[in-house]
Amino acid sequence: MKRIRVALAQIGTDIGDFEVNAKKVLSCVKNARLKGADLIVFPELCLNGYPPEDLLLKPEFLESGMKALREIAQNVGDIVVVLGFAEKEVDIFNSAAVIFDGKVTGTYRKHFLPNYGVFDERRYFGRGIRACVIDYGGLRIGVGICEDIWHTGGTTERAIAAGGAEIMLNLSASPFERGKHERRRRLLEARSVDSKAVFVYVNTVRAQDELVFDGGSCVYHPEKGLIASAPRFKEDVLFCDVEIGFDSQKLLEPTHRYAEYSPALPVQLLRIEKILDGEKPELEVRGAPVQYGAVEELYEALTLGLSEYVRKNGFEKVVVGLSGGIDSALTAALAVEALGPEKVTGVFLPSKYTSALSRALASSLAENLGIELIEIPIEDALESYRKSLEGVVEEGISGTTDENIQARIRGNMLMALSNRYGWLVLATGNKSEFSMGYCTLYGDMAGGFALLKDVFKTQVYEIARYLNYKHGKDVIPEGIIEREPTAELRPGQLDTDSLPPYFILDPVLEAYIEGCMPVDEIVRMGYDRSVVEGIVTRVDLNEYKRRQAPVGLKVTKRAFGRDWRMPISYLVPGTILEFLISGEELR
Amino acid sequence: MKRIRVALAQIGTDIGDFEVNAKKVLSCVKNARLKGADLIVFPELCLNGYPPEDLLLKPEFLESGMKALREIAQNVGDIVVVLGFAEKEVDIFNSAAVIFDGKVTGTYRKHFLPNYGVFDERRYFGRGIRACVIDYGGLRIGVGICEDIWHTGGTTERAIAAGGAEIMLNLSASPFERGKHERRRRLLEARSVDSKAVFVYVNTVRAQDELVFDGGSCVYHPEKGLIASAPRFKEDVLFCDVEIGFDSQKLLEPTHRYAEYSPALPVQLLRIEKILDGEKPELEVRGAPVQYGAVEELYEALTLGLSEYVRKNGFEKVVVGLSGGIDSALTAALAVEALGPEKVTGVFLPSKYTSALSRALASSLAENLGIELIEIPIEDALESYRKSLEGVVEEGISGTTDENIQARIRGNMLMALSNRYGWLVLATGNKSEFSMGYCTLYGDMAGGFALLKDVFKTQVYEIARYLNYKHGKDVIPEGIIEREPTAELRPGQLDTDSLPPYFILDPVLEAYIEGCMPVDEIVRMGYDRSVVEGIVTRVDLNEYKRRQAPVGLKVTKRAFGRDWRMPISYLVPGTILEFLISGEELR
Repeated sequence: MKRIRVALAQIGTDIGDFEVNAKKVLSCVKNARLKGADLIVFPELCLNGYPPEDLLLKPEFLESGMKALREIAQNVGDIVVVLGFAEKEVDIFNSAAVIFDGKVTGTYRKHFLPNYGVFDERRYFGRGIRACVIDYGGLRIGVGICEDIWHTGGTTERAIAAGGAEIMLNLSASPFERGKHERRRRLLEARSVDSKAVFVYVNTVRAQDELVFDGGSCVYHPEKGLIASAPRFKEDVLFCDVEIGFDSQKLLEPTHRYAEYSPALPVQLLRIEKILDGEKPELEVRGAPVQYGAVEELYEALTLGLSEYVRKNGFEKVVVGLSGGIDSALTAALAVEALGPEKVTGVFLPSKYTSALSRALASSLAENLGIELIEIPIEDALESYRKSLEGVVEEGISGTTDENIQARIRGNMLMALSNRYGWLVLATGNKSEFSMGYCTLYGDMAGGFALLKDVFKTQVYEIARYLNYKHGKDVIPEGIIEREPTAELRPGQLDTDSLPPYFILDPVLEAYIEGCMPVDEIVRMGYDRSVVEGIVTRVDLNEYKRRQAPVGLKVTKRAFGRDWRMPISYLVPGTILEFLISGEELR
Repeated sequence: MKRIRVALAQIGTDIGDFEVNAKKVLSCVKNARLKGADLIVFPELCLNGYPPEDLLLKPEFLESGMKALREIAQNVGDIVVVLGFAEKEVDIFNSAAVIFDGKVTGTYRKHFLPNYGVFDERRYFGRGIRACVIDYGGLRIGVGICEDIWHTGGTTERAIAAGGAEIMLNLSASPFERGKHERRRRLLEARSVDSKAVFVYVNTVRAQDELVFDGGSCVYHPEKGLIASAPRFKEDVLFCDVEIGFDSQKLLEPTHRYAEYSPALPVQLLRIEKILDGEKPELEVRGAPVQYGAVEELYEALTLGLSEYVRKNGFEKVVVGLSGGIDSALTAALAVEALGPEKVTGVFLPSKYTSALSRALASSLAENLGIELIEIPIEDALESYRKSLEGVVEEGISGTTDENIQARIRGNMLMALSNRYGWLVLATGNKSEFSMGYCTLYGDMAGGFALLKDVFKTQVYEIARYLNYKHGKDVIPEGIIEREPTAELRPGQLDTDSLPPYFILDPVLEAYIEGCMPVDEIVRMGYDRSVVEGIVTRVDLNEYKRRQAPVGLKVTKRAFGRDWRMPISYLVPGTILEFLISGEELR
């Protein structure tokens, strides 16, 4: 029976901030040594920040990282540090440095490079073709990075089968999406059981632009299952004593091992002389981390993602146009959760179509949230546009043209406040609207960050109700949740004038966008063909609007960001040209 | 001596328009047979249109293509057709179908899949691992696709070395960029000489969203050099009689062949029974195609790209805000070249800062171009904004806030015309401005298409002068070319108040953006360090604006489109937080 104490450094780092990142790494290392850890593992590309995207094409970005790595190495003593970084050699690699006693003992280079969804790793990285095993006083520890664990036949299996690894480390930067945490857990459990190795999974946390990282680092034992887990959505260093003593079992069941499936990837062995017998300080006993339900998970992801965007870009405050409707109410409420009420300003921008109900609801929302509420009427500006345009547009301004002008005046007013005070404008559109183009370019789409961009309307309601439940009172007034959705850009307007009911729209959108399902298959789910065709056509036709949308947080399998790369110009089946782009907009 | 008549079908097809694309292919095939061609070659992914991007993830898109391919095959008789298409098998491949006598004889699957710049091919395609050679009556013809030709050690060399190909086909969809055509030519010549094979290069033409395809298909003979070439920037079917009779020479110089460098890729041989002895109708003699200078090339790319975007998206007209400055003048003038004056409307949107000179120049431009000119004053709207905001912004509205409101009112007015009449708004910003963030979100950045997005300011002047030269008169008034650049958003404003002179700015931007050069290297080119650092910092900090910019045409090595994937949130070296994002915008 051998025993090793492992520290899982579930931290987040800022892209390009090498000095601060290195300090943070060293501070975790120091703390881990004090607590008797033999080994500390950091997330994928931890030193550079994740994902660095095209910064990886800048030589100085890579060199700064390499320099920071050398400096860290010099400050590491009697503890094994496994740290993710971008390695600049003849090619660039997504690597893990194994550091011990003042130097980098070796590196493992990621084998499986994801190039789907939001990932473009083959754009940047060369493929590693060696498995890597650390021999630490006779105990064998394999190293793998993120995607390596999701596929069979690669360096992870090879490290275990040919390299004899009994513990397998996985350094990850795995973006959050609804329900993905459970999939990760099941995968780790299966891998651990199949290969009879302990899996140590270290995920990063916090957020970067459109990606949220939810942590949830953990250790799976092939016989005992989950033996340690870190909280989600926040930084943590998790300590775990791993005991190895199932060797004989393993040898009796060779068919359970991956050996015969593995390709002939060479194994690099890094020997670290060590006698595994030291006494350790006792670890404090911690309770199991909080579990999250489906809606809670969304709530956590959205608040974390927003607070990180605000912090990283140095904003003091955010501003939200409050219409008295549910989207802007939830956006403001989540902003208050993320940043506190003193950092959120609401702006009510009434026109003559704005109802007394909207005013009352916006005002009661602001009161509940404890945020400042500014009122800027837009009627005069609208009138001046109408007058200016009357001279050139014979029939005067009406219909969607008039509606869009209103939305754009509101956008301009919010941007003026942003320009004047440096506030970040939060756009309030949801995924159902962005999908259907039920939104105005430069109008309600204006802003630096669209918090609900990947949240369907039906989920907007769920999160609002959860938020009220969490607070034990109606933070978001029930009147806002109960009223029928309206853009209030003309008298008596309702969303359902232009859109199918959300309980039909949202599942069809999900099947089409996230499921990549063809119309025929969606119809077989039980929806009317003409409804499905209408929805799909509108999604296709509104790509030009989405292309100019603000960034927002990915919380589903496929968001309208880096994982949605559609052409604007193409023949959308079943459409006629007049129906195409911009002409009379669809709202 | 064997002789074969090859047709190079330099055509463009529309993404997803399978019916029309198939008809176009068959019409070229029919024409080629009439002219006695043995073989007709189409561009890469010709049947689906290029680049299909995430449409390749839709099963129905792939199936429609496969169906269209089968229908085409049934209509092909005694001529070999080599056609690019997306092949749906267990995986998806970027393939060339070899069609003869009613059926698909075999397919070649692209080996080198580009995954850099604008290309994401490993996101979609599996890698082909067989070379492909057609044995056509004893004459051996290898098949390759685009990138295959740019690298050694792949299927192209293997087809020649192991498969004995004497003619090598290359199906391409190679996007235009400044000077790339010459690089292609030099490469083809070198490949042909090295391998002693005739290279038949077929490139697509026309444009798709941000990419322009410039054609320039050609045939290189290892001894005679360029033996046929198609025009650039327009569709064409080029015929070329290729004579093969240098075999003995080849055998004497084995070291000149690729054989020993090739990996062990298997060669697939497609046998087509044929006796190569038929009499052929005589080919008409054509003069050499037009050659283009550097600026002419840009002019052709911009006009072609715009006319294609307008056609594909079904617009009747475009609208341009004319300020009396050079960018809007060139945008309007190029639109007239691309679409004709009756399809272009100019809008003059004066404020009280607008000079009499600007009015006179805008009006004389519109007259020269023969386009309608509308005037919409923005002073009243601006006043109403100021009044509405006065209540909430204590010190009143001034500075960049006031400037941005003006720009946004202009954007709104143009969008109102777009909404009312279905016109496409052309944004007028150039690459120097987009780089530096010297532009207003939702203001002068508003529009469906930014024609000059990838054209530096210094090139804007060059193209303007070229256009006047081409017409033999000042289409763009000399006064517009001569005046000092100004945004006219406050009294006496000049670009040089906020930017380094363009003759310094543009080469620094080019080195940084296209050359990926670090600051130190740019300084060594002879620029002042503080100037370079100032420029680079502003490029980095303005990513948030570019992320919401309209699409525009790529004409350089690296445009702000699919080939620029920068994070918004990262530590820009040498900046302080207050300077970051949106706060007081930089203009």
